[in-house]
Amino acid sequence: METDSYPKRLVLIGGGFGNIQLIKRLKNYSSFQITLIDKHNYHTFQPLLYQVASGGLGSDAVAYPYRKIFRNYKNFNFRLAEVQEIDTEKNMLLTNIGPVEYDELVIGTGSETNFYGMENMAKWAMELKSIPQALDLRSNILQEFEEAINTVNMGERKAYLNFVVVGAGPTGVETAGALAEFKKHVLPFDYPELDHNLMQVHLVEAGSRLMPAMSEIASAKTKEFLEELGVKVWLNTAVKDFDGKAITFGDGTALETRTVLWSAGVKGSLISGIKEDAILRKSRYLVDETNKVKGYDNIYAIGDVAAMVTDKTPNGHPGVAQVAIQQGDRLGKNMIARMLGRKQNPFQYNDLGSMATIGRNRAVVDLPFIKFQGRIAWLAWMFIHLMTLVSFRNRVIVFVNWMWNYFTYERSIRLIIRPFTTKTKD
Amino acid sequence: METDSYPKRLVLIGGGFGNIQLIKRLKNYSSFQITLIDKHNYHTFQPLLYQVASGGLGSDAVAYPYRKIFRNYKNFNFRLAEVQEIDTEKNMLLTNIGPVEYDELVIGTGSETNFYGMENMAKWAMELKSIPQALDLRSNILQEFEEAINTVNMGERKAYLNFVVVGAGPTGVETAGALAEFKKHVLPFDYPELDHNLMQVHLVEAGSRLMPAMSEIASAKTKEFLEELGVKVWLNTAVKDFDGKAITFGDGTALETRTVLWSAGVKGSLISGIKEDAILRKSRYLVDETNKVKGYDNIYAIGDVAAMVTDKTPNGHPGVAQVAIQQGDRLGKNMIARMLGRKQNPFQYNDLGSMATIGRNRAVVDLPFIKFQGRIAWLAWMFIHLMTLVSFRNRVIVFVNWMWNYFTYERSIRLIIRPFTTKTKD
Repeated sequence: METDSYPKRLVLIGGGFGNIQLIKRLKNYSSFQITLIDKHNYHTFQPLLYQVASGGLGSDAVAYPYRKIFRNYKNFNFRLAEVQEIDTEKNMLLTNIGPVEYDELVIGTGSETNFYGMENMAKWAMELKSIPQALDLRSNILQEFEEAINTVNMGERKAYLNFVVVGAGPTGVETAGALAEFKKHVLPFDYPELDHNLMQVHLVEAGSRLMPAMSEIASAKTKEFLEELGVKVWLNTAVKDFDGKAITFGDGTALETRTVLWSAGVKGSLISGIKEDAILRKSRYLVDETNKVKGYDNIYAIGDVAAMVTDKTPNGHPGVAQVAIQQGDRLGKNMIARMLGRKQNPFQYNDLGSMATIGRNRAVVDLPFIKFQGRIAWLAWMFIHLMTLVSFRNRVIVFVNWMWNYFTYERSIRLIIRPFTTKTKD
Repeated sequence: METDSYPKRLVLIGGGFGNIQLIKRLKNYSSFQITLIDKHNYHTFQPLLYQVASGGLGSDAVAYPYRKIFRNYKNFNFRLAEVQEIDTEKNMLLTNIGPVEYDELVIGTGSETNFYGMENMAKWAMELKSIPQALDLRSNILQEFEEAINTVNMGERKAYLNFVVVGAGPTGVETAGALAEFKKHVLPFDYPELDHNLMQVHLVEAGSRLMPAMSEIASAKTKEFLEELGVKVWLNTAVKDFDGKAITFGDGTALETRTVLWSAGVKGSLISGIKEDAILRKSRYLVDETNKVKGYDNIYAIGDVAAMVTDKTPNGHPGVAQVAIQQGDRLGKNMIARMLGRKQNPFQYNDLGSMATIGRNRAVVDLPFIKFQGRIAWLAWMFIHLMTLVSFRNRVIVFVNWMWNYFTYERSIRLIIRPFTTKTKD
């Protein structure tokens, strides 16, 4: 048994699903003096960012301030800061607001877009991992329509109206579907001067099927749904380059477009200070079955930034919300157990299944015991996402917006609020 | 009678209340081929911007895309553009998307902040005339709290928590009241590490009473309500300077603060190309009683940017939504009358009264026949503003948010989405 002294200064970096759950688990345990550090003052519900980007939801529907979430927690502190380095010798973080000391540290920084070294792509393609990026994508898409109207050159107009999504995981599939619905339900009415057939949505995937983490039937149905909506699906298609004007595929074919959403890969958001041999493939922290980072006694990593490599999970767990939530929960329980001198338990992932929505009445759901698609799947998707939102207020707002969008076929939040940009680094 | 030929190319600059009403009035008249030009793609409901700034509403609640408002108008076009100059000889606008020709032009560019030549103030003070500015103000206010927590210097902490509003018209009064409610209902719970008494809201007015355009009783009640909420009201106080660190008053007193909202004056948003003698005090276009700009046959100005100087209105009309709406309405009727060879009527302002809200259950209302204050005034204020919102969707969203805020005492949309800035030019 370890010789611990309490109360402990427990510092958490990043307020994603994992650390949120961990904090909830530690509520009322004054033995843990929690400080959450994040560069935003709000939790982002990433699964719905694509709806912010496509004008179905406002940013306030999917973001919620940390201070409000943990308002009644006597052991909770929040600091708006960026962590620059971890000094593991001194048990101290170096941040832009000064040093922060910790007794124990939990890294929950999540993941960021991985461009796999493609510099042009990194420079020109849009991302969809944060609220500012979602607002940028929305503003850019809407400005492409306005630009298309302003040009008389038909080639240019087509280029403005080509939207390319790379990567057919949930973010890519859901964004492509939302864009296709925009073409169908909004464009003909609001942009009567544009031939809406000129708008083309392309979904490009290097692998042989969409939603590769789901079942074959889900992949097939996803493709069917997207094609029903008019999305051009490119399978087995590698992407070579994008220079802001045209995207080039592996076989040399080029497609003129101004807007590419890159959702083809992520990597853990690492912070310097952790030694190399605790990092798997320059991307994720190697952790043991209690989420402790390899080679450290008081540093944990959970969620997307952690790789729990075991015989059963040689590549760690998938980078999904459920893993983060369950790891945060388990870590919280183990911390309490340790404090009470009780036995800690290794993390066991309980795969609850996965789902994606392609559009109205079109979703795919894989549960451990059943797989289904279509309208029921869509209702299930909406229900689960509503329930997972972090606050009752956001559930109400999202619900009202969804009802509105359902009955009117609208995406009303078509506001170009942010200046035109190729992309936001965030 | 003029010899007109139809259809006419009618170009409107700016989609504020006046031009919105004008377009509605001309619906279904194919004799008018309308092009609305605006630098935003959405109409802004300015009266509620202060609620966006104080976290009570999201930006999507008070903005609505023009293309959606006029979706079923066959004679309507929209162009997202900035007008650089009016070439009145060639009947042409020079814009950032190229030239736009007109047969008749309506300038409805509204007003912008007037700093009366105070360069420092223009550089450092915040404004509240647009959505981006409201989001900037919100982000800055919230960041001041975070900064205050991060400093151990008590003088600095007090400075971060001093919020100064200059100018006691509706924007100033309503923002000061909202900040005071934030101090009362949010700060003690969400920032327990801050002594919330350190937060001070100052409302500074050069004149001898608040809400100078309203009745004496409304002014007195406004002051009473604000002081009940803890706002420090400075009357007869001129402001001399603000350098980003401290605001200096006319008598030399200085107050340390990081955040000054300047709402002490506006001027018309002029566009170059209109000759000098049609401009009143470098600020507004002189118009006749049909809103035609002095010296031009085919150029009109309505709303805040127009000064209809008559014996009854030696300074033109007040810069309020009602004037713009009624002028847009009258101009539309007159355009139709002219087309039909009927008599045009001069504009007659029908003053429906004015109102302002200070906080929960605290508002002041002056109607032509009755003046009242308090809870009933507050309910009236909410009802009128809900009804004036441009779309049913936004009415629903604002209503849901208001109900939520009322029952929870919350201002949930406390999101720092935009990078810290001293101010946005917009």
